[in-house]
Amino acid sequence: MEAFSDGVFAIAMTLLVLDLRDPAIGSGVSLPQGLLGEWPSFFALVTSFITVLIMWMNHHNMFNYIRRIDRRLMFFNGLLLLFVVLTPFTTGLVADHMLSDSAGAAAAIYSGTFLILSIVWNGLWRYSSSGHRLLGSDVTDQQATTITRQYYVAPLFYALALGVSFVSGLASVVIILLVAAFYGITATIGK
Amino acid sequence: MEAFSDGVFAIAMTLLVLDLRDPAIGSGVSLPQGLLGEWPSFFALVTSFITVLIMWMNHHNMFNYIRRIDRRLMFFNGLLLLFVVLTPFTTGLVADHMLSDSAGAAAAIYSGTFLILSIVWNGLWRYSSSGHRLLGSDVTDQQATTITRQYYVAPLFYALALGVSFVSGLASVVIILLVAAFYGITATIGK
Amino acid sequence: MEAFSDGVFAIAMTLLVLDLRDPAIGSGVSLPQGLLGEWPSFFALVTSFITVLIMWMNHHNMFNYIRRIDRRLMFFNGLLLLFVVLTPFTTGLVADHMLSDSAGAAAAIYSGTFLILSIVWNGLWRYSSSGHRLLGSDVTDQQATTITRQYYVAPLFYALALGVSFVSGLASVVIILLVAAFYGITATIGK
Amino acid sequence: MEAFSDGVFAIAMTLLVLDLRDPAIGSGVSLPQGLLGEWPSFFALVTSFITVLIMWMNHHNMFNYIRRIDRRLMFFNGLLLLFVVLTPFTTGLVADHMLSDSAGAAAAIYSGTFLILSIVWNGLWRYSSSGHRLLGSDVTDQQATTITRQYYVAPLFYALALGVSFVSGLASVVIILLVAAFYGITATIGK
Repeated sequence: MEAFSDGVFAIAMTLLVLDLRDPAIGSGVSLPQGLLGEWPSFFALVTSFITVLIMWMNHHNMFNYIRRIDRRLMFFNGLLLLFVVLTPFTTGLVADHMLSDSAGAAAAIYSGTFLILSIVWNGLWRYSSSGHRLLGSDVTDQQATTITRQYYVAPLFYALALGVSFVSGLASVVIILLVAAFYGITATIGK
Repeated sequence: MEAFSDGVFAIAMTLLVLDLRDPAIGSGVSLPQGLLGEWPSFFALVTSFITVLIMWMNHHNMFNYIRRIDRRLMFFNGLLLLFVVLTPFTTGLVADHMLSDSAGAAAAIYSGTFLILSIVWNGLWRYSSSGHRLLGSDVTDQQATTITRQYYVAPLFYALALGVSFVSGLASVVIILLVAAFYGITATIGK
Repeated sequence: MEAFSDGVFAIAMTLLVLDLRDPAIGSGVSLPQGLLGEWPSFFALVTSFITVLIMWMNHHNMFNYIRRIDRRLMFFNGLLLLFVVLTPFTTGLVADHMLSDSAGAAAAIYSGTFLILSIVWNGLWRYSSSGHRLLGSDVTDQQATTITRQYYVAPLFYALALGVSFVSGLASVVIILLVAAFYGITATIGK
Repeated sequence: MEAFSDGVFAIAMTLLVLDLRDPAIGSGVSLPQGLLGEWPSFFALVTSFITVLIMWMNHHNMFNYIRRIDRRLMFFNGLLLLFVVLTPFTTGLVADHMLSDSAGAAAAIYSGTFLILSIVWNGLWRYSSSGHRLLGSDVTDQQATTITRQYYVAPLFYALALGVSFVSGLASVVIILLVAAFYGITATIGK
């Protein structure tokens, strides 16, 4: 299951490149100018790339603790992958609309999708860890609690990003990038 | 062979996202309105995603029982993967036509493709299990029979979905989603 | 190296689906009619899918015999993967042009690409097997010779397909499908 | 982490094929003529394919020496993969603009992206190897120094390619191809 999930993460991350378009085709602008004008696409791509990369690392880390598997876990994990698969689409929406009137709406969809993803993630973890249901027997209560607390950060800040999107689409995406940075800095690393 | 099949399942599932399009480009509608109007795309994507995900899980489960491999098995498996690869295309047809006159035709193609896939699947299993041809020696007759019976469900209901498509495209897709739900609930889970 | 090659084979095979297009968009025809009119796309997809699938199987089989690796082998294998990667493009050309005046040209490019691929393949094998350079010590001369002979079939028939393309594009693609069938029937299968 | 990186390399390499377009659609030229006119696309594809392939080989080779992993290594590796993911986009820019006034600009972006990638690569290696921080205990100082020296070549020549792009886009891409050839010839090969 982990290898399969890895595949979906890697493919979704690589498909992000399909959101980039040659800006000088069918327009009068020069290539460098066109690319500069396309900065929202690059900004959204980098945000999504880092977010999915960090999620992949955390996913691996989580399955260092979860040692058993049951139908509900599969269900949670499938739902999680569904939202990972949607990332290139929501990223494309942000890229296309960042400079238009619908920047807020695009950012709301973008952050809202990550919000749901993070709630599913927390659901998966809470289900697996409550009463040590699916955890390895060597995992201590304290370790589990530390992780539970770490995972709370994402839905809180994605909810903030969703709220902020109604004021500024750009600020909303910046918050999402900061969430990835937070997890990048705090995540436990194991080989 | 399993790793290769896994790769095809994962890539086909992730390519489903390419069926989604930015609804506000070149049209007068707002982004939220446009996305709401695009609900058939999301509905078809979710149905296909869950169906292929469940197929992948069942595929793994099946190969817990099938321990040997021969040319015919490879042939069956290759045919099965061919229909898995077609999924993003048939899903796109359903998404594009759900709200048009050709909703029934699109749903017929969609459900018909899954029907053939499920017949190939049953053929693969019947070939492998009949006389315990390719099964592990520890697999009991009863286990094999239970699986045989479980696998009958898919072609029966995909045939129903095909029939229903001539009355209602939407109802046809709903049946396909229910088949995935059935297997999601009944499938044996092993790590 | 095998896992990496497997990935490229699997992705190329799955990307073939992007050659299929919704025939009823922007045209007056009905969906079933449109799909029937698109039969060259399906025919080309099936031919390429089976060809790449069989190549993948044979690639695995070949690396059961080749146990060592050197820079030249890597070079041959990289070149081989380059032509595998081109398959979705050449398949799309055949699909687009089968019913037009340029059917022959498209089939010539399609079969010519497979011809070069099969020459690279034979080069890889000849380099690895000559003097048992990279073969396992348990591989007999007779086994190596049998494989050498089997691999001759592909370039011969792809050259025939290339020649025939100047008369009939369709016949050329049929020959390529027959080559895949030949290898599907004769290939040694190991798990 | 290596399996995941492998996946990203393989997917990026295969997505390069999406840069190729049927030249005879919507234009008056014949298919062979159109393909000949599209030579920049093929040239750029081959250059990028070989470059990414060689990078993948070197990446594997590098992780034969790096045996431990920490957060900064993950960061460097993620950044490196981000630039790998951009390759199909920058390749497409070179392909689209090679024959236009903006050939130099496209080549500057193409070589500039590889330049940054190679700097990140050197950063990753310097960080891992300095003081033997993450290297295996059996790796000698001399081995590490040899690799350090080898890795210098890429940024130097990518910087040259960037400079040359202001004179000739084509010459710039040729230099990038030569860098790949250099590493293809000098890279140590291990299974």
